[in-house]
Amino acid sequence: MTVEPLPPGSTIGILGGGQLGRMLALAAARLGMKAHIYCPDPESPAFDVTPRQTVAAYDDFAALARFADSVDVVTYEFENVPAETAAAIAGHAPLRPGARALEIAQDRLKEKSFIGDLGLPVAPWRPVASLGELGAALVALGTPAVLKTTRLGYDGKGQRIIRDASEAPAAFAALEPKPLVLEAFIPFDREISVVVARGGDGGVAAFEPAENVHRNHILHTSTVPAAISPALAARAVEAATRIAGALDYIGVLGVEFFVSGDGLLVNEIAPRVHNSGHWTEAVCITDQFEQHIRAICGWPLGDPSRLAPVVMENLIGEEALGLAARLGPGIRPHLYGKREARAGRKMGHLNHVREPRSHG
Amino acid sequence: MTVEPLPPGSTIGILGGGQLGRMLALAAARLGMKAHIYCPDPESPAFDVTPRQTVAAYDDFAALARFADSVDVVTYEFENVPAETAAAIAGHAPLRPGARALEIAQDRLKEKSFIGDLGLPVAPWRPVASLGELGAALVALGTPAVLKTTRLGYDGKGQRIIRDASEAPAAFAALEPKPLVLEAFIPFDREISVVVARGGDGGVAAFEPAENVHRNHILHTSTVPAAISPALAARAVEAATRIAGALDYIGVLGVEFFVSGDGLLVNEIAPRVHNSGHWTEAVCITDQFEQHIRAICGWPLGDPSRLAPVVMENLIGEEALGLAARLGPGIRPHLYGKREARAGRKMGHLNHVREPRSHG
Repeated sequence: MTVEPLPPGSTIGILGGGQLGRMLALAAARLGMKAHIYCPDPESPAFDVTPRQTVAAYDDFAALARFADSVDVVTYEFENVPAETAAAIAGHAPLRPGARALEIAQDRLKEKSFIGDLGLPVAPWRPVASLGELGAALVALGTPAVLKTTRLGYDGKGQRIIRDASEAPAAFAALEPKPLVLEAFIPFDREISVVVARGGDGGVAAFEPAENVHRNHILHTSTVPAAISPALAARAVEAATRIAGALDYIGVLGVEFFVSGDGLLVNEIAPRVHNSGHWTEAVCITDQFEQHIRAICGWPLGDPSRLAPVVMENLIGEEALGLAARLGPGIRPHLYGKREARAGRKMGHLNHVREPRSHG
Repeated sequence: MTVEPLPPGSTIGILGGGQLGRMLALAAARLGMKAHIYCPDPESPAFDVTPRQTVAAYDDFAALARFADSVDVVTYEFENVPAETAAAIAGHAPLRPGARALEIAQDRLKEKSFIGDLGLPVAPWRPVASLGELGAALVALGTPAVLKTTRLGYDGKGQRIIRDASEAPAAFAALEPKPLVLEAFIPFDREISVVVARGGDGGVAAFEPAENVHRNHILHTSTVPAAISPALAARAVEAATRIAGALDYIGVLGVEFFVSGDGLLVNEIAPRVHNSGHWTEAVCITDQFEQHIRAICGWPLGDPSRLAPVVMENLIGEEALGLAARLGPGIRPHLYGKREARAGRKMGHLNHVREPRSHG
C-alpha cells in the first residue's frame, strides 16, 4: 500500500508529551507540519513546542475521537499505547505505525515469537505463568537467567536476575503483571542498536548501528561508528529491515541487539524513535525524528548519511544542572524542558561530535 | 559587561513571528528554553511552535510592557524594530542585541558612517535629502549609481539604479521615505556574507563566509565554502568581528560584502540571524539560531565548525509546492509553515549537503 503524501500544513497528532513527542513535534515543524500533542500530564514538555494540545487520559475515548478528528495522521512516542486507545483512534485517523507493531512490541512473548519466526536469533526463552513453569524454565535454560515482565518494562524496570534457583520464588512474587518470561543470560561483548525507517511505499532507510553503553539500566552513551565489522553491521541492518517489513511498518523502528564475538541476537524492538538514535540529530543529513515524520506523512524517506563520528551522552537527573558552563567545542546540547531534575529522569542529551578528518 | 547565564526553563521573548522568529523559537526549545512570540499578525508562522503568543501592534506599549514582564530576555527577528518599541521593552527586560545595533542598522546613513569610522571600506556614498543634492552626488560618484531609501529597505525594495543623470528626478520622486542615499555602483565579482556571534563576555565565534547569489533581488543560494582565498575569508571574518565589537553586540549579526578581485567592501549589516546563515543548520555543530539563543542567554558560544560542504537554496513562492516528491539524497528541507505561497514570499529552504570526502 502506498501512502498518499500529506501536504505541508497538515496536522500530526502525537500520543505522548515526553521528550520523544517533543522532538517529533520539532521535526514536524521543520517540514511545515503542525503538531497536536495528546497527553494526560498537563506538565508535558512537548506542550511547550505547539499550541495544539489535549490533556486527557488514554482511555478517554471521546477525547481521543475529537483529537483524531482534528488531525491528519496519528503517531505515538511510546510502545505501551493500549490496544483500545489505538482502536479508538483508528476509526478517525490513520495510526502510523499501525496497531500490529504495538501489539507485538508491547508483549515480550509475542515479540520473541515474532522475531524467532522470522528466522532471526533471540536469546533462549520460556514463558512463565506460574512458579512451576519458572522452575522448569530454569532447568531448561540454566542460571544465571533473567526473569522479566512481558509488558510495561523499560529502563531495567520489571526484571530480576536469577543467579540461583533458590531465588526463583522471590523473583516470581516481585514481578507484576503476570505472565512473565525467563530469558537465558547472555554474556555479550557489546550492545548495538539499529534505527530503521520504512516508508508507506515499502522503501527502507537505515541509520548506521550505534554502540550503546548503559549505566544503572539507563542508556548512557551511543557511539557511532560502533566497534563492529562492516559485515556484522550489515547483518544488523538487514535484521532490522526484515522486522520492519514483516510488520508492514510505517515510521521509525528501533531494534536492539546483543553482540558476542561474531554472533548477533535481537534483544528487543521499539516501534518509535529511539534514545539510541538521538545521535542522528547532530550528524546526519536527515535525523530520526524527521525520518519518522516523513514516513508517516507519506513523504520519501530522507538521506541517513552520517557526516562525522559522534558520541551521544544522556543527561540523567541532576547531570543537566549547570550545563551552560560545561559546554565545550564539538558539543551539541539538547535539553527537554523538564521542570524537575528527578533521579533517573532523562533531562537531555549531548552529542559530542568529532570532526571528519578532511572535507572540501 | 558579562551576562549572567539564564537557566534552562527561562522564557525568551521574540519580536516578530516570521520564519526567523520561528527558527529562533525552535532553537530555544532545543536548549530547554521557552519562547514567547510577539507579532501583530495573528497568522504568524512562529505561533505554530509555541503556546506563548501575543498578538498586538509594535506601538501598543501596554502590551509590550506586559510581554516584556513575562519573559527573561527579549530579542527580535527584524532590524526595523522602532526605537520607541525598543525603549518600551528596555524598562522591563533586557533587549539583546541592544538599541544601538538597531539604531545603526535601520538607517543606511548611520550604518555607512559607522562602518567607515571603523576604517572598513564601503562603496562611495552621499546623503541625498533633495533633488539638488542628488545632482551633486551624481557628479561626485558618476553613473551608474544606486539611489536607496535610508530606512525600511529589504529584498531590493526601496532602491533604483540611475544609469543616466536624466533619470534622477523620477528616481528621487519614487523613493520614500526621504532622506535617501546615493551609492556608487560596484561591479563586484561576487557577494559573500559572514554570520558572526558575540557573547555577553565579548567572545566571538564566526561562521565561515558564504557566497550568495540573488535572483530578482532575493537571496537564491548560499554556498559554503565560498570561492575566495583563505586570506580574503579571514579579512571578512575580521571585519564582521570588528563591527560586532564596536556595537558592543550580543547575539548573531549578519554582514554582507561585495568582493572585487582581492578587494572587499562592506555592503550592509543585519542585527539578527540571517538568511545567508541558514546553511549552518545542516552542517555546523552549532547553527546560527542556537548561537543567537546562547549569546542572548549568556551561555558560552557554541562550536561553529562545519562538517561538510553545502549549498542553501531558498524556496520562493510556488517553488515550495509539491516539494515532497522532489527530495533527493543529500537534501535537508526546512519549510516555514506559511499558509499562502505568494510570489516573492520566502516559504522555506533546502540545504544540499555534499558528503565530506572521508570520515572515520
